[in-house]
Amino acid sequence: MKVEIITIGDEILIGQIVDTNSAYMAQLLNAEGFSVVRTTSIGDNADEIKNTLAEAENRADIVLITGGLGPTKDDITKQTLCDYFGTKLVFSEAVFAHLEKYLDKANIVGMNDLNKSQAYVPESAYIINNERGTAPITWFERNGKVIVSMPGVPSEMEWAMSQVLPKLKQTFSAEEIIHQNFLVYGYPESTLAIKLAEWENALPSYIKLAYLPSVGLVKLRLSAKQTEGVVLKKAVNEEARKLRNILGKAIIAEKDTSLETIISNLLKEKKLTVTTAESCTGGNIARLLTSVAGSSAYFKGGVVAYDNAVKENILGVSADDIEEYGAVSLPVAEQMAKGALALLETDIAVATSGIAGPGGGTDEKPVGTVCIAVATQEGVISRQFLFGNQRDRNITRSSVAALVMLKEVIG
Amino acid sequence: MKVEIITIGDEILIGQIVDTNSAYMAQLLNAEGFSVVRTTSIGDNADEIKNTLAEAENRADIVLITGGLGPTKDDITKQTLCDYFGTKLVFSEAVFAHLEKYLDKANIVGMNDLNKSQAYVPESAYIINNERGTAPITWFERNGKVIVSMPGVPSEMEWAMSQVLPKLKQTFSAEEIIHQNFLVYGYPESTLAIKLAEWENALPSYIKLAYLPSVGLVKLRLSAKQTEGVVLKKAVNEEARKLRNILGKAIIAEKDTSLETIISNLLKEKKLTVTTAESCTGGNIARLLTSVAGSSAYFKGGVVAYDNAVKENILGVSADDIEEYGAVSLPVAEQMAKGALALLETDIAVATSGIAGPGGGTDEKPVGTVCIAVATQEGVISRQFLFGNQRDRNITRSSVAALVMLKEVIG
Repeated sequence: MKVEIITIGDEILIGQIVDTNSAYMAQLLNAEGFSVVRTTSIGDNADEIKNTLAEAENRADIVLITGGLGPTKDDITKQTLCDYFGTKLVFSEAVFAHLEKYLDKANIVGMNDLNKSQAYVPESAYIINNERGTAPITWFERNGKVIVSMPGVPSEMEWAMSQVLPKLKQTFSAEEIIHQNFLVYGYPESTLAIKLAEWENALPSYIKLAYLPSVGLVKLRLSAKQTEGVVLKKAVNEEARKLRNILGKAIIAEKDTSLETIISNLLKEKKLTVTTAESCTGGNIARLLTSVAGSSAYFKGGVVAYDNAVKENILGVSADDIEEYGAVSLPVAEQMAKGALALLETDIAVATSGIAGPGGGTDEKPVGTVCIAVATQEGVISRQFLFGNQRDRNITRSSVAALVMLKEVIG
Repeated sequence: MKVEIITIGDEILIGQIVDTNSAYMAQLLNAEGFSVVRTTSIGDNADEIKNTLAEAENRADIVLITGGLGPTKDDITKQTLCDYFGTKLVFSEAVFAHLEKYLDKANIVGMNDLNKSQAYVPESAYIINNERGTAPITWFERNGKVIVSMPGVPSEMEWAMSQVLPKLKQTFSAEEIIHQNFLVYGYPESTLAIKLAEWENALPSYIKLAYLPSVGLVKLRLSAKQTEGVVLKKAVNEEARKLRNILGKAIIAEKDTSLETIISNLLKEKKLTVTTAESCTGGNIARLLTSVAGSSAYFKGGVVAYDNAVKENILGVSADDIEEYGAVSLPVAEQMAKGALALLETDIAVATSGIAGPGGGTDEKPVGTVCIAVATQEGVISRQFLFGNQRDRNITRSSVAALVMLKEVIG
């Protein structure tokens, strides 16, 4: 079933807000086998709405509209939908009663005209009351196609989708679709693509591969569509097996998750504590570790050691070694990790020392040179990396590399 | 000048990523007097691309395309553009030479076939080399309209726009437009809108106000369009003066910049050093301070004190006070700041202690309660805040509040 999403609002077209509704709806729809073929954002303009709607209805089986329903904008979208479907606004006692209950529960004082206007709904539409706001959800059907208009406020849209999606599944029997995600570390997208080319080209027609690169990581997603005489799960498992053979340890997770969440779960599961000693990453690793709810269970704290004096006085790094090897060196990174391990009294410590840039590079140690160490009571491992020349990317890549080493050590 | 934006990528249509490019581009375009009338997202599909492009070219003067250019997707979009414009891919020595330089600088080992394929460009297009990635920017012109294809990776798109926007201004001599930005702290968007309503409604027709909210801050932008018999600069200055009278100290900057950049410049100018003692912000303040190039001039390091033992043993916070007032309290935040100031030997220290959530809240101190302190040799100031119930937003709002207090103290 083909779906098109239309998000309405001038605030989107001037870049005042990012349209997150489309992605949210697309994820839900995709997971249920509805395929979104296009999303369009337009302003609060009657003609634009009619034209876009006509194009979408012509191409797709289902058109989902969000936005343009706030009390102040109500007139445009709702009236436009009436014109488009050749119907008129009628006062609904049921919707009005619901509005009164809603406003009362939300402790909103009194029913004003703007709110009351929300009780006027298109006569030919099926109405779903909105339990998260004042704008009702209107569901139109014609020629076997469904057009639904819902509020644009994310929390209201999310609730609306919880009502609309089941009704869509009743109305249309969506085809089965299976996804499997792989989080891959250690390959730039282009290198990975070459490594996987042979396998990718041999994929059966009903299994598609998507590359979703982020800084330092690539997410691979296999999507398989229901096909005559194929057991999807079996087919996907078979391809997953081949992929594991090709990538081995480069696959650090087989679900749609983040590196910090994986580490959080591992640390909790093994009841281990961790600390950080960061130079070039400037606190970003600690930030990532503590971005996960419940991180206080395993993260006790850390040190950002930007200045050499901090490396020496707080982490106990040898001034002579900094002199001899330089602050960006494996011995110094290792001593930073060991120092933090002792100071914070944790099971594991991760340390970074590098040149994020743009300044500070030398011929011997150019911008992008980063040393990372992970220490435990058993000992310490360390590696030197050479990343790129962009400060923000170097900080992110260093953080990802450090978390991957941390994951290796946790096991 | 009417602009349409087309973002290409299956990952958008399945909701794997949110299309942030459109909003970024729309903001820039809007600021220069180009009006975005529609944004469309489609998949990596040749026919979809051709149809969408044809519709957009027919409606708008300028069509900006992002995405579908990664080395793994190269064939589709680039070849489709060639078909659409009736041209062919030709090998460009210049682009290839640039690619070699780029890959070398980025320390990406070796030129592989996929990267080499990026040197094949549409013969009839004007090419802009990509200094943030491997996919070149292609600029087509016909019938007085401009169609530009650029990479979809945000960092690459942002750089591409820095090249494309000036060229668009040359080509279309967009009408003169003057902007003045204000960075405002301390008001949620809706509250700010009410506070400014009277002034905003009285603005002359040729001056528009845009609200660009981010977590914890609102950027206000006055945009004045060339108008018969009006001295724009004078008119904008007059409205800016009125706005200053209304908002006073809530205006923390009058240019389009970031809080951390403002602080970075202040610290360098006054030759002051700073340190951080972070509990609920988990290293995010240190990350922000070190995200600015050259931050080693003023940032010596900091402590992430998540666990109370770290607050006591490393920052010297009194265990009795933690017992008596709780870890999330003004006395503890103040002692954290003073402790860091002494430990790191800096001029200023900023400390945070709060309940980011979702867990850890009590009736007395609900999730979102955050105490922030800033200490100098002269003394310490501290404030208690009550933010919301979302962990990530609480961390960001706490960091912004801490940086604003830091800015006050630097003066």
